[in-house]
Amino acid sequence: MKIKLAKSYGFCFGVKRAIKIAEDSIDASTIGPLIHNNEEIQRLKENFNVQTLHSIEEAKGIKKAIIRTHGIPKNDLKILEDQKIDIVDATCPFVTKPQQICEQMSGEGYEVIIFGDATHPEVRSVKSYAHNGAKVVLDVAQVKELKLSNKIAIVSQTTRRVEEFLKVVDYLVANFKEVRVFNTICNATFENQDAARELAKEADVMVVIGGKNSSNTKQLFSIAQQHCEHSFLIENENELQKEWFANKKLCGVTAGASTPDWIIEKIIGKISKIKV
Amino acid sequence: MKIKLAKSYGFCFGVKRAIKIAEDSIDASTIGPLIHNNEEIQRLKENFNVQTLHSIEEAKGIKKAIIRTHGIPKNDLKILEDQKIDIVDATCPFVTKPQQICEQMSGEGYEVIIFGDATHPEVRSVKSYAHNGAKVVLDVAQVKELKLSNKIAIVSQTTRRVEEFLKVVDYLVANFKEVRVFNTICNATFENQDAARELAKEADVMVVIGGKNSSNTKQLFSIAQQHCEHSFLIENENELQKEWFANKKLCGVTAGASTPDWIIEKIIGKISKIKV
Repeated sequence: MKIKLAKSYGFCFGVKRAIKIAEDSIDASTIGPLIHNNEEIQRLKENFNVQTLHSIEEAKGIKKAIIRTHGIPKNDLKILEDQKIDIVDATCPFVTKPQQICEQMSGEGYEVIIFGDATHPEVRSVKSYAHNGAKVVLDVAQVKELKLSNKIAIVSQTTRRVEEFLKVVDYLVANFKEVRVFNTICNATFENQDAARELAKEADVMVVIGGKNSSNTKQLFSIAQQHCEHSFLIENENELQKEWFANKKLCGVTAGASTPDWIIEKIIGKISKIKV
Repeated sequence: MKIKLAKSYGFCFGVKRAIKIAEDSIDASTIGPLIHNNEEIQRLKENFNVQTLHSIEEAKGIKKAIIRTHGIPKNDLKILEDQKIDIVDATCPFVTKPQQICEQMSGEGYEVIIFGDATHPEVRSVKSYAHNGAKVVLDVAQVKELKLSNKIAIVSQTTRRVEEFLKVVDYLVANFKEVRVFNTICNATFENQDAARELAKEADVMVVIGGKNSSNTKQLFSIAQQHCEHSFLIENENELQKEWFANKKLCGVTAGASTPDWIIEKIIGKISKIKV
């Protein structure tokens, strides 16, 4: 069986940057997981004693806090500042951008809409920057339920699909006088998605590697499934099952934006040893 | 044969307003046709001595100028002002809006795109308000040829179809960081279009009444054709042809936004006398 890697996969700029920051911040703590990849977080804990706290309450008494790639709510940041905790900001610059837009647009009297998952930490951090709150929607049906003014600004969770974003944008443009559209979807997400689509079309079996709580990994998996019926999402090599590869000629491999190369290499190594 | 009028048709707010202004401005002149309907312009000339000039040069020496519904280029307006000509503004308020947006957005450093027909007087008037010019496009292919910055504002010619506008908007949003979308398409256009579509679906023959140089009339005609193969565009009752109605049960009638009721009534009167 031949194994082929997607043309673009794995770590994005923001994740690479955050890991570098964490490696340089021995003994620090992150509020919530730094990135959505348990294996990498485990490595940072073992090698650099970077701890992962589960809530802002647990931060009491720590010396140094690393802000996760997804950002944290503005109020949580203030709590850390009030406690004079040393803060290292690993928020992805592509997330800082929608935070700033939310703050600015709501300040200028725009009704701010965030296209994304209201429960995702990135969206919660972005939303917290809007004065008087922002509205979070995942599709047109949800937008239709909102009561909106005629001055609307919209941003997107960085890891969303542009096709879905455009559906919401189109509805707003068709029904409201002014819409300020900020395409805050990250290019790295696009590139990995395009490459996954291309590869899934030719592969007999697709292995998508990444955190099962990672939004962009789940989307890669969804794209893979659309074009290759034998698609599987795994976090590590132990989840591989031999029977997935029976009678398959080409195995495509891709990985989410927070999946480190060392995990990808481990998995490819194990797949290559499977006899089909 | 049954005759059915579209639920919404004919004169829009801006045209009604302009005709009222013209009727109140005896002996005045318009620079270019007040509205895109030759019959109504003829009536205004005969009953109120409202003249139609063909260019700004012809305005020299006139006492009172009426600005047509489509607006005129900013420079032409200045020429009239410099000549101390009394100016009555019949620009449709829905056209004044994109003029203001062009002026403001270009002033704020946005690259202004106008979705519309570059040769249409409305578009030429709107475009003239953008400092350093605006780019006019009719489809995605034309936008792709432009070299654009990352700060874009887009307005639409008031009589364009929203579906086509959205295609251009989608392209821009997918490829640029910030797009300020101003939906300056006029509701009256929508309403007449929706009603024409609905009626064309049930009619055996469709008669669309309006100026052959009227953008919104041509679009009504295009919609009618999509849903009713026997669709005809006429300006007056003399163009009616008996054979169009042979063996037809339901004749649908609609009219462009600058078509006066008296023309519609004349035409319906003549159709109703046709024996099928």
